[in-house]
Amino acid sequence: MFAEVLTVGDELLTGNTVDSNSAFIAKRLTERGHWVRRKTTVGDDVEEIKAVVREILARKPEVLVISGGLGPTHDDVTMLAVAEALGRKLVLCEPCLERIRQFYRELYAKGLIDDPELNEARKKMAYLPEGAEPLENTEGAAPGAYIEHNGVKIFVLPGMPREMKAMLEREVLPRLGSRKFVQRKLLAEITDESKLAPILNETLERFNVRIHSSPKGFGRYIGIILFGENEEEIEKAKAFMESKGIRFEEGW
Amino acid sequence: MFAEVLTVGDELLTGNTVDSNSAFIAKRLTERGHWVRRKTTVGDDVEEIKAVVREILARKPEVLVISGGLGPTHDDVTMLAVAEALGRKLVLCEPCLERIRQFYRELYAKGLIDDPELNEARKKMAYLPEGAEPLENTEGAAPGAYIEHNGVKIFVLPGMPREMKAMLEREVLPRLGSRKFVQRKLLAEITDESKLAPILNETLERFNVRIHSSPKGFGRYIGIILFGENEEEIEKAKAFMESKGIRFEEGW
Repeated sequence: MFAEVLTVGDELLTGNTVDSNSAFIAKRLTERGHWVRRKTTVGDDVEEIKAVVREILARKPEVLVISGGLGPTHDDVTMLAVAEALGRKLVLCEPCLERIRQFYRELYAKGLIDDPELNEARKKMAYLPEGAEPLENTEGAAPGAYIEHNGVKIFVLPGMPREMKAMLEREVLPRLGSRKFVQRKLLAEITDESKLAPILNETLERFNVRIHSSPKGFGRYIGIILFGENEEEIEKAKAFMESKGIRFEEGW
Repeated sequence: MFAEVLTVGDELLTGNTVDSNSAFIAKRLTERGHWVRRKTTVGDDVEEIKAVVREILARKPEVLVISGGLGPTHDDVTMLAVAEALGRKLVLCEPCLERIRQFYRELYAKGLIDDPELNEARKKMAYLPEGAEPLENTEGAAPGAYIEHNGVKIFVLPGMPREMKAMLEREVLPRLGSRKFVQRKLLAEITDESKLAPILNETLERFNVRIHSSPKGFGRYIGIILFGENEEEIEKAKAFMESKGIRFEEGW
């Protein structure tokens, strides 16, 4: 049971934008008990997006969250590419179109744009892959999409962080059930890193936890993150490691 | 001719760390005339890293930059995974071992660690895939590796940003030749996004440039980035678009 994240945008591939979206999505998925196994980023290119979506589906994740490329400009092609990858048509979502019309009217009323009318570019955002459930965008024009496809829950979200975050919280997470992971950050004092590995491995065998580690302070400390389904399991795993001689400080 | 970037680290998949490394690498590669076509992130897992390295090599990029997982802890497995993906053995790099020994002696002399001696975990960092050229790490213990494999230039760098950046500048970029791209950011005033697309497409056909665009200010502006081999080509492309009625402001 694992998840994948796909972010789409040329600006991510030229380094003009740091991809904080995928970290945010990964963090929230992890908290909800979904391990992210891989993150991928491709540009605003139908063939590239199509290819990577097919590759991801072949790995059969439980959840795939895609972010970016839903806007009105000519290089916003994610919905089209996802539809093609799934062998579905793009079809007009009438309530989405009405919502988009309303959105631009409100922007016009506030003096933020010069033209309130729907044009081809704005209309384009109302087309979703056939069978998709529209996801409401409370912060912008473009709706997202939720598609169940061969057992994979696919969510297509906007790339603007404010829009993506709101949609993730309101529309995605409630569809992922109630599983949760808690995590605890610990700092382990250690002088020989090679002594830690067997203890970590034994802990993994005995308890229902996952452990990530990374060196801190030139190897004097190892930063540990313990993930588990509840605090009790984490506490037991920590006590076991302490019984093996590891000294911990909380947090880092 | 394109490049790919692979970042490795569990902390990137749990969202505990935002992957700014891949953005930095992508920016510098783009500036040096190497388009990044895809970025991938996987965890500290030999099989995962091996699988993704093989997938990337099958796409035949000119350059592959890998970052993360070179340290002394048990979950630093990138060199092993890269070696296995390439069907090469890990072999001891004697000068690397000497450099690592020296590095820990200096940390010990500064009082930063309690034990100056090489242990298995520290020694591990001196093993590189057979035939690799070691890349000097001026900021940390673990050397990087440069491997030419079936026409792909593979660079394996540490994940600590300070170490990765120094190695990229000193060891990677000088091996990538003298090609360069310049970029110019422009803000295009536009009320109907759909009118912009044909002009951009005509510009792409006539001039040796690449164009990225993204909406700014609710579609009143479109942010444009023009990439080209020199300022003259960019200037010509900009003048052409202006002749078609687009008004630009510099920068955004």
